[in-house]
Amino acid sequence: MKRLFEVDPWLVATHRLETTDRRLQESITAVGNGYMGLRGNFEEGYSGDGLQGTYLGGVWFPDKTRVGWWKNGYPEYFGKVINAPSFLGIGITVNGQQVDLAKSHYRDFYLALDLHQGLLTRRFVYIGADVEVQFEFARFLSQTIPEAALITVNATVLKGTATITFDATLDGRVTNEDSNYDERFWVAQHEDATAKSIQLQTKPNPYAVPQFTVLLKQQLRVNGQAIVGKVTTASGWLQEQVTTHLTTGEHYQLEKDVVVVTSRDIAPDDQATKATQLMNRVVKDDFKTHLAAHTQRWAQRWAKSDVVIDGDPAAQQGIRFNIAQLFMTYYGEDKRLNIGPKGFTGEKYGGATYWDTEAFIVPMYLAVTPPEVTRALLQYRHDQLPGAYHNARQQGLAGALYPMVTFNGIECHNEWEITFEEIHRNAAIAFAIYQYTAYTGDESYVNHDGLEVLVGIARFWADRVHFSQHAQKYMIHGVTGPNEYENNVNNNWYTNTMAVWELQYTLAQLPKGDPDIVAALAVTDQEKRHWQAIIDQMYYPTDKKLGIFVQQDGFLDKDIRPASTIPETQRPINQHWSWDRILRSPFIKQADVLQGLYFLNDRFSHAEKERNFDFYEPLTVHESSLSPSIHAILAAELGKMDTAVALYARTARLDLDDYNHDTQDGLHITSMSGSWLAIVQGFAGMRYDHDRLRFRPQLPKNWQRYQFKLTYRGRLLAVDVGQKVTVTLLAGPPIDLDINGETQHLEVEDDHA
Amino acid sequence: MKRLFEVDPWLVATHRLETTDRRLQESITAVGNGYMGLRGNFEEGYSGDGLQGTYLGGVWFPDKTRVGWWKNGYPEYFGKVINAPSFLGIGITVNGQQVDLAKSHYRDFYLALDLHQGLLTRRFVYIGADVEVQFEFARFLSQTIPEAALITVNATVLKGTATITFDATLDGRVTNEDSNYDERFWVAQHEDATAKSIQLQTKPNPYAVPQFTVLLKQQLRVNGQAIVGKVTTASGWLQEQVTTHLTTGEHYQLEKDVVVVTSRDIAPDDQATKATQLMNRVVKDDFKTHLAAHTQRWAQRWAKSDVVIDGDPAAQQGIRFNIAQLFMTYYGEDKRLNIGPKGFTGEKYGGATYWDTEAFIVPMYLAVTPPEVTRALLQYRHDQLPGAYHNARQQGLAGALYPMVTFNGIECHNEWEITFEEIHRNAAIAFAIYQYTAYTGDESYVNHDGLEVLVGIARFWADRVHFSQHAQKYMIHGVTGPNEYENNVNNNWYTNTMAVWELQYTLAQLPKGDPDIVAALAVTDQEKRHWQAIIDQMYYPTDKKLGIFVQQDGFLDKDIRPASTIPETQRPINQHWSWDRILRSPFIKQADVLQGLYFLNDRFSHAEKERNFDFYEPLTVHESSLSPSIHAILAAELGKMDTAVALYARTARLDLDDYNHDTQDGLHITSMSGSWLAIVQGFAGMRYDHDRLRFRPQLPKNWQRYQFKLTYRGRLLAVDVGQKVTVTLLAGPPIDLDINGETQHLEVEDDHA
Repeated sequence: MKRLFEVDPWLVATHRLETTDRRLQESITAVGNGYMGLRGNFEEGYSGDGLQGTYLGGVWFPDKTRVGWWKNGYPEYFGKVINAPSFLGIGITVNGQQVDLAKSHYRDFYLALDLHQGLLTRRFVYIGADVEVQFEFARFLSQTIPEAALITVNATVLKGTATITFDATLDGRVTNEDSNYDERFWVAQHEDATAKSIQLQTKPNPYAVPQFTVLLKQQLRVNGQAIVGKVTTASGWLQEQVTTHLTTGEHYQLEKDVVVVTSRDIAPDDQATKATQLMNRVVKDDFKTHLAAHTQRWAQRWAKSDVVIDGDPAAQQGIRFNIAQLFMTYYGEDKRLNIGPKGFTGEKYGGATYWDTEAFIVPMYLAVTPPEVTRALLQYRHDQLPGAYHNARQQGLAGALYPMVTFNGIECHNEWEITFEEIHRNAAIAFAIYQYTAYTGDESYVNHDGLEVLVGIARFWADRVHFSQHAQKYMIHGVTGPNEYENNVNNNWYTNTMAVWELQYTLAQLPKGDPDIVAALAVTDQEKRHWQAIIDQMYYPTDKKLGIFVQQDGFLDKDIRPASTIPETQRPINQHWSWDRILRSPFIKQADVLQGLYFLNDRFSHAEKERNFDFYEPLTVHESSLSPSIHAILAAELGKMDTAVALYARTARLDLDDYNHDTQDGLHITSMSGSWLAIVQGFAGMRYDHDRLRFRPQLPKNWQRYQFKLTYRGRLLAVDVGQKVTVTLLAGPPIDLDINGETQHLEVEDDHA
Repeated sequence: MKRLFEVDPWLVATHRLETTDRRLQESITAVGNGYMGLRGNFEEGYSGDGLQGTYLGGVWFPDKTRVGWWKNGYPEYFGKVINAPSFLGIGITVNGQQVDLAKSHYRDFYLALDLHQGLLTRRFVYIGADVEVQFEFARFLSQTIPEAALITVNATVLKGTATITFDATLDGRVTNEDSNYDERFWVAQHEDATAKSIQLQTKPNPYAVPQFTVLLKQQLRVNGQAIVGKVTTASGWLQEQVTTHLTTGEHYQLEKDVVVVTSRDIAPDDQATKATQLMNRVVKDDFKTHLAAHTQRWAQRWAKSDVVIDGDPAAQQGIRFNIAQLFMTYYGEDKRLNIGPKGFTGEKYGGATYWDTEAFIVPMYLAVTPPEVTRALLQYRHDQLPGAYHNARQQGLAGALYPMVTFNGIECHNEWEITFEEIHRNAAIAFAIYQYTAYTGDESYVNHDGLEVLVGIARFWADRVHFSQHAQKYMIHGVTGPNEYENNVNNNWYTNTMAVWELQYTLAQLPKGDPDIVAALAVTDQEKRHWQAIIDQMYYPTDKKLGIFVQQDGFLDKDIRPASTIPETQRPINQHWSWDRILRSPFIKQADVLQGLYFLNDRFSHAEKERNFDFYEPLTVHESSLSPSIHAILAAELGKMDTAVALYARTARLDLDDYNHDTQDGLHITSMSGSWLAIVQGFAGMRYDHDRLRFRPQLPKNWQRYQFKLTYRGRLLAVDVGQKVTVTLLAGPPIDLDINGETQHLEVEDDHA
């Protein structure tokens, strides 16, 4: 655990520049607006260790993966978000000396991310020879004009006189740290010194993946007035310099407005014109006015999603940080985008889409955002159905295999044990359709586009299982379950269970589907009989003596011992142990059997859940950031509140406290829903099956109270759990809820109407 | 099957230039001398499709493998032989026109590899405007001066007059086809126009692998007289031009002598001097004299190893081709070298050492070469023991893990499912020690260096097994057996069986070891008890009903069906099926359980062997070139001679008939012993356990007779199997043999004495 920032309900702030943990600090101070995002790099540059990162949603590159040995069915390329041209730079000199916090003298450093709206501010006093200058920075990425980034720097001379130069740059000469052979992904196209813009294109690729063209344009304002500095250009690079001379007490405010457009929206030839139009909109209003409009949008989001925790300020900060970072990554505006495990905060996991979205984000987003936001996530998968069919075909299989990692529906990871073995993701994508339908009551998706997804997936399962003559059962061999610390196992209980669930759900939905779609899908009676046969004769590894579902065929043969036997110095094992040792060990990365008990919660008895939890949780090292929340929810359900609270702590402040020692690479965006799930589904026991919202709230020992908001079927609800439980209908028609097994009828009170 | 060359007992010849199968033709006409080798590229160049390949034993490069996802215990680099600077080139123009068989007119093409000594000759008549010139080429790599290549070209004008230029080149501007990012591995150091040499160095690497420096030097002779042509140089390149004017009937003989030295033997600064000394030796004698000395060395080898087959000319050619290619690859001169799966004939498998050597080469070399040749192969592994300890340490394990692929003892492949899972190789390396000892009766290796190898391996097994509380047995999880069409399986019967065999053999040998070595090894009583416990309580998957050993825990649950159900259009499955489909299929790449029955032949009953053969062989697709021979041996033992003969055919002419459709990449050098093993251990039923050489000969239906030679414990034997069986002692003290269960006493007859 490493806590760099001060605890505060709405701020993530520090008075220290962390020179040895600069990357961690950068990750935590990343900001985004769904369209783009950037790490907390410094405007003036920083020559110490750090990771420069600016990312544009959907702008990626298919990097070569076919090196060494390659086999049929392996993906041709590894898709990765690429570091986009940087628009942040405002190099600074004071009396000819470069300001660089890695080398300069300074005092009174302060850095703060305001969670209300993702405003990042920073200040410090630069100490030069006979001169002291206070610099104050502010930046945000606009919610009202998503292509716009607004950056200000305010210089105040505290002592002496200062000649200050500001070099506002647009810099396309960026690389990825993870590029295999130090190759660059961007090719400069054009620099326009008059328009103050640069245009670049991603380099060609042999995989028929479109090249992306981006244009960045800047406009400087001094004390609110548009100005033109001295412009210099080089290939893929533009610099605009302004100089000021200040004496003690004088100050100078520079604003750098940036517009970034990409060929995802604007054809390359039209980008200059479009950027000019957008910039005209930006310069019509000042920084404050833009910030106010931006903050207003955020306030509307918070009104539907805020969580209040009394009695645990660290937990309070953690949950708000997580919600803010999630919303900075995705709020459904662009259906072609999804939520990468690191969002816009790092290179790792390549900004691509994983099953994380369906398994961990959908259950939260359903409740904290308008339904169309979650529906956009579902629509994304339907739009990528051709890619899923392609992926199955690559394996010689029928139906649709959704990718483990993708930008466009086509699998683009490069480990066979993941790409064509971790097929349980296909079930999670179907399960999200079920969850959306069950929560919203809106059947229009599952009966139309959703049905095409379900049938595509069902056809995949039907071809992927095999019938074992020896066992007289259907089996699924050669999979990797949610526990990625085992590869290529047979009959992963979770996968077998979810595959059958998917076939059942599809068979149940087919009769209700839109007739035209059902006709086009042309599921034959023979297919349905085959699906039913699989449902009826699936093999599930179980152990009668232990009374548990067995994770996979060979699991009980392992050298089974609790994770508590691992010395602390060897944790996390994925950083200390060889992959060989990990694969053979009994230690579980994240919920596997328990993930099934979480998803299909109402199918299993309390005793079944308890026996499996008591067997598997002690073996679990929770080295996926997705792990603790699911365990916290089950622990709470089983009345193990101490365990639930301990696990909650690992998810609530995973990044703020750097629990997994890897936040320097970027935030665990898709795990951030875990803290919300742990509170709402865990502590508050929220369930929503069978068209009824239910709660069974518990209060963690050290908390006085927690409150959260829910959007449910046209209502806005507030749930308040303290010594007593109060659910309030804030908006929408009356509703009956179930609290601790008792029905409560709610209507909007007058003062909320 | 594709047969490009004519059938002949001692020649591999053709009258056709195969423009669409040029690579295949190049592979089959590769020549080598243990020190270096080259594919059958044309001296004058060829602009059509082909693969240029010149390889120097032990000159390799550690190519980056850490791209994309990398986990602890994965090798840092992928070692590969690199295409060496080419010394072959003699570009030719006739009256200003480039001679290029891809574009020029020609007739009477002839290409022949003489198996007596690896002499490659070629001739054709070039047809130009009003001119016809016959060109005759010959090349061989000397056995008497291994650093020397001798190349001649003879031009005879058949019609018209011709001005002919010859451009003899040394060309370091070579690349590997398999280089990941088109990178070059060689950096030019120096070109000397006077000495007619070029010197190059492999580029730096970050893995502490030494860089190699090579120097190539040439000398031209015309009609036997040393001459100097017009020399031009460029970076890493040298050309020496001579021109001649000939009229009809005149001819011109050019000889290009080449010397290649490397920093493996000669320090870079001394290379020029050493090359000059070597060249002085070369030019002292003419081509014919060198060829005669070279052929004499080969005759000595053939006297100990030739196999004669009467009644099957194709089989006769196949076995001689295989023996010749093996001897061109390795004859034990340099203990730092080993036998790569493709020898000097292609890039694939990177010229590195695999378990093929111990499993497939040692059993043949023991009988056809002097004992010191095989012992050099054993010594190679002892010398690399530190690398094997390193490999185990990388996995967090004790003892020695010999690499799957290596140049220096350190694992350098890049598939985890192979590198740290295909650990059965460790047993094969120990088994080679047993075989050497049992065949030669020489215990000096096993009691000294060999014991260090055995104990290192035993310590690895003891740490790699685990005790399953559930099963109350020792198990080995997470392995890949010899059948590489399954990965990460549990309790591969072969691996478990051979691990226990190794522990037993080590425990048995320890008391006989050299006292100093035993003391230094310091095997404790506790260790020995642990080894014995593993021996006593190892788990072996078996099926009582079927009466077979089960390949691995999950095997019988598969959708088991014979390989005959695979449509011919889908073969080989490794080229047509996804890896997913292959892994889950019941189809076996090469002998797995049956490999164990082959190695530990005297442990199992005839009935056991028969039940397992009848179960597994039908599931086997034989897509490893190492597969058919082992099956042929067992089939012969089981009296299934038709099956044995059919399988023999696939190994005898694997490359000559391109059975696996991949000989264009290079020859299957390490499989070439398979045809010899099938004849000697299969048809002739040769066994050598318990200090007694035994035979149980059978004659394939269509053969009249076969004869082979054996070196055994100081004797040279000739075995002749026709309508009757005759074993003759050609040299050495009297010996008692066992033929069809009866003892025969042999003495050297007078006329052999």
